[in-house]
Amino acid sequence: MEHGLLGQIEDLCRALLSSRGEASGVAIARRVLDLYAHATPDERHAFLRSLAANFGPDRATIGDAWSAYEREATPATLAAMIHAVEPPRQELFRRLNFAPGGTAALLAMREDLLGCGAEGELKSVDADLVHLFASWFNRGFLRLRRIDWLTPADILERIIRYESVHEVQGWDDLQRRVYPADRRCFAFFHPSLAREPLIFVQVALTNQIPGAIGDLLTADRQVMPVEEVTTAVFYSISNCQLGLRSVSFGNFLIKQVVEELSRELPSLNTFVTLSPAPGFGGWLARVLDDPTGSGWSERETEAVKRVLGAPDWHRDAVALASIEKTMLALAAEYYLSIKTGSGEPIDPVARFHLGNGARLERLNWVADVSPKGLREAKGLMVNYLYDRRSIEANHEAYVGTGAIAASDAVSRHLRENARIR
Amino acid sequence: MEHGLLGQIEDLCRALLSSRGEASGVAIARRVLDLYAHATPDERHAFLRSLAANFGPDRATIGDAWSAYEREATPATLAAMIHAVEPPRQELFRRLNFAPGGTAALLAMREDLLGCGAEGELKSVDADLVHLFASWFNRGFLRLRRIDWLTPADILERIIRYESVHEVQGWDDLQRRVYPADRRCFAFFHPSLAREPLIFVQVALTNQIPGAIGDLLTADRQVMPVEEVTTAVFYSISNCQLGLRSVSFGNFLIKQVVEELSRELPSLNTFVTLSPAPGFGGWLARVLDDPTGSGWSERETEAVKRVLGAPDWHRDAVALASIEKTMLALAAEYYLSIKTGSGEPIDPVARFHLGNGARLERLNWVADVSPKGLREAKGLMVNYLYDRRSIEANHEAYVGTGAIAASDAVSRHLRENARIR
Amino acid sequence: MEHGLLGQIEDLCRALLSSRGEASGVAIARRVLDLYAHATPDERHAFLRSLAANFGPDRATIGDAWSAYEREATPATLAAMIHAVEPPRQELFRRLNFAPGGTAALLAMREDLLGCGAEGELKSVDADLVHLFASWFNRGFLRLRRIDWLTPADILERIIRYESVHEVQGWDDLQRRVYPADRRCFAFFHPSLAREPLIFVQVALTNQIPGAIGDLLTADRQVMPVEEVTTAVFYSISNCQLGLRSVSFGNFLIKQVVEELSRELPSLNTFVTLSPAPGFGGWLARVLDDPTGSGWSERETEAVKRVLGAPDWHRDAVALASIEKTMLALAAEYYLSIKTGSGEPIDPVARFHLGNGARLERLNWVADVSPKGLREAKGLMVNYLYDRRSIEANHEAYVGTGAIAASDAVSRHLRENARIR
Amino acid sequence: MEHGLLGQIEDLCRALLSSRGEASGVAIARRVLDLYAHATPDERHAFLRSLAANFGPDRATIGDAWSAYEREATPATLAAMIHAVEPPRQELFRRLNFAPGGTAALLAMREDLLGCGAEGELKSVDADLVHLFASWFNRGFLRLRRIDWLTPADILERIIRYESVHEVQGWDDLQRRVYPADRRCFAFFHPSLAREPLIFVQVALTNQIPGAIGDLLTADRQVMPVEEVTTAVFYSISNCQLGLRSVSFGNFLIKQVVEELSRELPSLNTFVTLSPAPGFGGWLARVLDDPTGSGWSERETEAVKRVLGAPDWHRDAVALASIEKTMLALAAEYYLSIKTGSGEPIDPVARFHLGNGARLERLNWVADVSPKGLREAKGLMVNYLYDRRSIEANHEAYVGTGAIAASDAVSRHLRENARIR
Repeated sequence: MEHGLLGQIEDLCRALLSSRGEASGVAIARRVLDLYAHATPDERHAFLRSLAANFGPDRATIGDAWSAYEREATPATLAAMIHAVEPPRQELFRRLNFAPGGTAALLAMREDLLGCGAEGELKSVDADLVHLFASWFNRGFLRLRRIDWLTPADILERIIRYESVHEVQGWDDLQRRVYPADRRCFAFFHPSLAREPLIFVQVALTNQIPGAIGDLLTADRQVMPVEEVTTAVFYSISNCQLGLRSVSFGNFLIKQVVEELSRELPSLNTFVTLSPAPGFGGWLARVLDDPTGSGWSERETEAVKRVLGAPDWHRDAVALASIEKTMLALAAEYYLSIKTGSGEPIDPVARFHLGNGARLERLNWVADVSPKGLREAKGLMVNYLYDRRSIEANHEAYVGTGAIAASDAVSRHLRENARIR
Repeated sequence: MEHGLLGQIEDLCRALLSSRGEASGVAIARRVLDLYAHATPDERHAFLRSLAANFGPDRATIGDAWSAYEREATPATLAAMIHAVEPPRQELFRRLNFAPGGTAALLAMREDLLGCGAEGELKSVDADLVHLFASWFNRGFLRLRRIDWLTPADILERIIRYESVHEVQGWDDLQRRVYPADRRCFAFFHPSLAREPLIFVQVALTNQIPGAIGDLLTADRQVMPVEEVTTAVFYSISNCQLGLRSVSFGNFLIKQVVEELSRELPSLNTFVTLSPAPGFGGWLARVLDDPTGSGWSERETEAVKRVLGAPDWHRDAVALASIEKTMLALAAEYYLSIKTGSGEPIDPVARFHLGNGARLERLNWVADVSPKGLREAKGLMVNYLYDRRSIEANHEAYVGTGAIAASDAVSRHLRENARIR
Repeated sequence: MEHGLLGQIEDLCRALLSSRGEASGVAIARRVLDLYAHATPDERHAFLRSLAANFGPDRATIGDAWSAYEREATPATLAAMIHAVEPPRQELFRRLNFAPGGTAALLAMREDLLGCGAEGELKSVDADLVHLFASWFNRGFLRLRRIDWLTPADILERIIRYESVHEVQGWDDLQRRVYPADRRCFAFFHPSLAREPLIFVQVALTNQIPGAIGDLLTADRQVMPVEEVTTAVFYSISNCQLGLRSVSFGNFLIKQVVEELSRELPSLNTFVTLSPAPGFGGWLARVLDDPTGSGWSERETEAVKRVLGAPDWHRDAVALASIEKTMLALAAEYYLSIKTGSGEPIDPVARFHLGNGARLERLNWVADVSPKGLREAKGLMVNYLYDRRSIEANHEAYVGTGAIAASDAVSRHLRENARIR
Repeated sequence: MEHGLLGQIEDLCRALLSSRGEASGVAIARRVLDLYAHATPDERHAFLRSLAANFGPDRATIGDAWSAYEREATPATLAAMIHAVEPPRQELFRRLNFAPGGTAALLAMREDLLGCGAEGELKSVDADLVHLFASWFNRGFLRLRRIDWLTPADILERIIRYESVHEVQGWDDLQRRVYPADRRCFAFFHPSLAREPLIFVQVALTNQIPGAIGDLLTADRQVMPVEEVTTAVFYSISNCQLGLRSVSFGNFLIKQVVEELSRELPSLNTFVTLSPAPGFGGWLARVLDDPTGSGWSERETEAVKRVLGAPDWHRDAVALASIEKTMLALAAEYYLSIKTGSGEPIDPVARFHLGNGARLERLNWVADVSPKGLREAKGLMVNYLYDRRSIEANHEAYVGTGAIAASDAVSRHLRENARIR
């Protein structure tokens, strides 16, 4: 960064933190954000490093505060301690938020931070932003809004852009997802980002738990009269704001949407997802590469390899049938037996839903034959069931002991697994 | 507090902070706030003390974190340090905010806290709430709304209730303050408290700096066409939420209203207050009681005592004239020479406006002959001038050296003072 | 009217009706309405007479159109006939409505017309305005809005001003009528008069049919939980716009409010009014003056006269009891037997509700002891019942044969009547 | 129509017009519209014929009313006359409008009427609907709304569907027309048809009068900063509601948009269209077929024929240049000399803009090379200039004498024409 610009922003930041910031806070904040917005990537990076180096807490001050607090813990020594430990950049961020558009600008700043890795000293800057955003984007400040065909186009355009599970194929596809009487879409918004969804979920209303995504998204399906629906299927959840990574809304969103839909449609009795299995393909490849290491017989893995190796294999019903039992046993193992170092399933989507208290309800193979679905999961999809009566217990067990709530059907596949290999 | 209820709330709070809170946060938060809302004052007090005693940081953990951080300051040790120092009740408050109406409930909780003094250990609880509210009610999240005769009645009713400077005498008086073309009222709102103003300011548009409040509030005045106005007079600023005490919005409010009005009415060239002098009466009484100690001649103070001691003294024009010079000299001394231990004026309204960068522009005697105005300030009112060109310099000087920006006229009264006594 | 101004308006009106009006309609309409708004009452009257004299249909043209139509009725001759008969001022009014605020200005013009009697030739102008307003204020264009404590103050102020049955005693009284959970107020609005209610009804939710207005309006009553309410009492209906006289909304309003309330509160099973008897006092005075003519025995009428002649008679329970039977018999006669020339009850409120298909349910004496209630109705009030099962039949009978739907109780009073006199 | 259904609707219509309609108007109207909506095309046609045959005025009654009125023209005889002449179906339509959605249903009924030709007796029904709609859709009741990228998708979808001049090629094309800073779109709405635009205009902001549509619509153009724009180009005006045919809004729309844009962008000094020439192709073909009849030399017409007869002729710059002068002379003749029986230009777009008071400003050849532009107008487009100073005079001259306002440039082409042939 041209020394001038970095120095200029730093000076303004110090002014913002000083008494001048009290008199002219909005103006200074606006100026800082404006300079930052027009800076080059390198200049921004330099500024972020400066936040790490120059706007952190002072070790000596912390030491003194600790000595006083250690001697006697009083409200005053505690307050001094808290004040000494909080990095000044936290207050800086809060004051930058004085400017119109400040919240969006701070989210963009964190996007830059993540873009350059948020490594080393920058981790502290990132932690401060996350701490702040977690407080500001508190669930109590979020608003659930239905997304439908009466929603303004700029917001719908963002829905198209942010959808990350099953890509939206243009406006006609979007209309099919939000307009029909048996489709719903809900998003959380924050009052300071009125036109930016934070996270959204797409829901299909059906009369049974669906086993394949294609049936839900196809253009030539029958709309189901809402009087007949019994099941709400959450088939896509997408986070929209990179700048809010690790500030989590999904759990709240699903639960409030369950509430909303229950109120609107008392006939609903089942709330379930149709979810991708993004890690299954990779894991399976490793198993097939080294069946012995994974405890599978070569006979089984060779059969699987043969089928999956054929072109257009997912259209060959006979071949599919020949390995279905094995594939489901493998999937059951993937979900129930394979764990990360910290004892959780290796599938990120599974961690999310099981952590929310859902139950692994059903394994569906072949359920997603999109290129992505074939590539990442060999067509596997799963249903997680949100059963209000067991959500809390499932969650407690999962967090406490790592126990995974699974239906009998899924557990059976696992036993089958033991039998096969 | 019946042990059962306190124990029950505490258990729920611990659950809310634990993993159960992740699964059922909204429900648990709702339950806690509900129990609290229906508790007796004593039960609430007991809960607040429990927050101080049981939901603070752990000294040993802080000690360990400090040792690690002292050894090596890394993002990880800093993060551990920050986490160790932050009182768990801060996270508790954030999670209580998950509940619908949570923000309002937390404000009410702080009202309770202030109601029982926020003394001793409770000071830490109060500090945590203030820290949180300062972040949540960040200026960037506030919305300026005009209050006028198209405003919903429930909000207007709150304006009547919250007005703390010049009491609103019912709806007709309110209409006179918000309806005419030469009157304005603006308030800050927070998105989570949609029907509760946080602070509001009342403005009269005139063609000169007014010297008495009665002329502004009287029922039988002429409305001034907006084409003729040159001066915006901020004649009343009221904070509405006790629970937000020491979270300050006034400075921001005045400055944004100056911007709004400048945009709407380019002919405006003067932004000024007509403010009370709430501490003048008490200070004057002390001077009159002990003139020698305060350096005034008994001749002067006796004259003042004689006039102010008469019934209906404020109607006796001859008597008023006889002591006017002395009174203004006393007022000048009150504002410019008398300081608190920390070197600021003893008048709280002066501290607010001078701290914002305004200038003490004019002393007006007799300007407020309401019972309150006579009692608290012997009828004195003052104008503070907000001149955009000097606001920042005034503020800097005030904060840096305690210098008080005052007009030549006011300074002259002070010199007069020296001559008289 | 200064000839200049009248001539100027007339010229503009002719321009508006000509081809110039097609090019510059909005501008000319604005100019006409502006001149009219600033004209004196005499000038306005002159313009209204000019509308009658100069902007009516042409007799010769009608004659020709009739001849052609009489010869052969075709779409073309019918169209010519319709065009010839329609007074050009109707098109003029439509074009005046092009101007912003035109609808309100035309309503005000009709107020002026009614103010000067709408007599003689002006009757035709009035008929044209009524015809137009009936089309424009078609029920399909009206919007029902709830009036409550969240309603903007300017609209509430109009509710206070327009309430014509039980005067609103200031804002506190208004709040008692619209704020409590067991009170409702609904109004019809027109999109072009967004801040002007056209008609509104005030409703009390109770658990029985009330017999006195005081209990509903008193400041110190208990609010009834909405779970307990069974009865919606329409205790006041007020038309707001003089300019819309004889364009009738009341029937639609009551029926839609019945629908709204039924939806909101399924426990409601009774929809009833508590209505004044504005003509009863006058009629009774005539009976008491000339008992023989009216067929009453002097003994009865003398007793009534004696009681009603005493000061504060409505507080004398013993005296009231002594004539109650007679009074109710008289009231029954007033409602059921006494008719106008066209065969309808002489009470205007009765004509309205019976014409809507309601049933005269109960006579309440002494039910309204306000000065107005005592003066106009000697304290009498009545309940009209809106029973959805019989509304249409009641209405048909009333319109067809003049039959008045009345409860057994009311009919019994009438028979009592026959026995007494 | 099955006799039952027609009879049933007719009975309900009669009930609606009778006193029953007063008691239960909304319910009956809803029932009629519901039956109609579910009727077959033949049944609907039968009902429309019944409206013509059975719900028209009564000739004898008109005759009597005329006799009375002829004897003495009083407000009473005039009122009777007006009442006798107005077809009862007008009141029927007004009462059908009581039903929720009534206005939209009546528009759809007129679409049906136009769909079956509105011939013969049906012309009277059509005239009644037009008369009613002209009153209900009075300009004073319409609301101008900007259409942009914040507009709800359902309304944008209708813009795509209703655009009738330059077809919208999907959502990306739409975004290019409403989103960029130098594009505008405005529509009129009626309060009772909140989601249905009635008419809309698309505007390009430029710095010169454009001569070809392609430059405005192309995907790869530079957006012009609004500070630089001087010219607002109305390049497309589309009526949306077939049911409102011959109720005209275009004139009002253009003039209000001129006002809105002038307010928003004071730098605008030119308001101009870029308009199609839909009748030019047909007329030219007739000239070329029979040059002698039209007074053109065969040499000229043969040259034109040769060029226009070549494939992809519009891409051959040399050929275009060779006949440009002749083509513009022909176009000038088409606009300025060729008239309909009633003395107006034969081009419908010309009639609209010249009738509004615009001036024919420029002939542009080759300006529209879309298949439609080539087919209908051999690529010709024209600019009409809306100059506020001359609009009224132009309109008056056009309506009065048929004079066509044209720029010198256009007139020169006409003189050229004389010289050439």
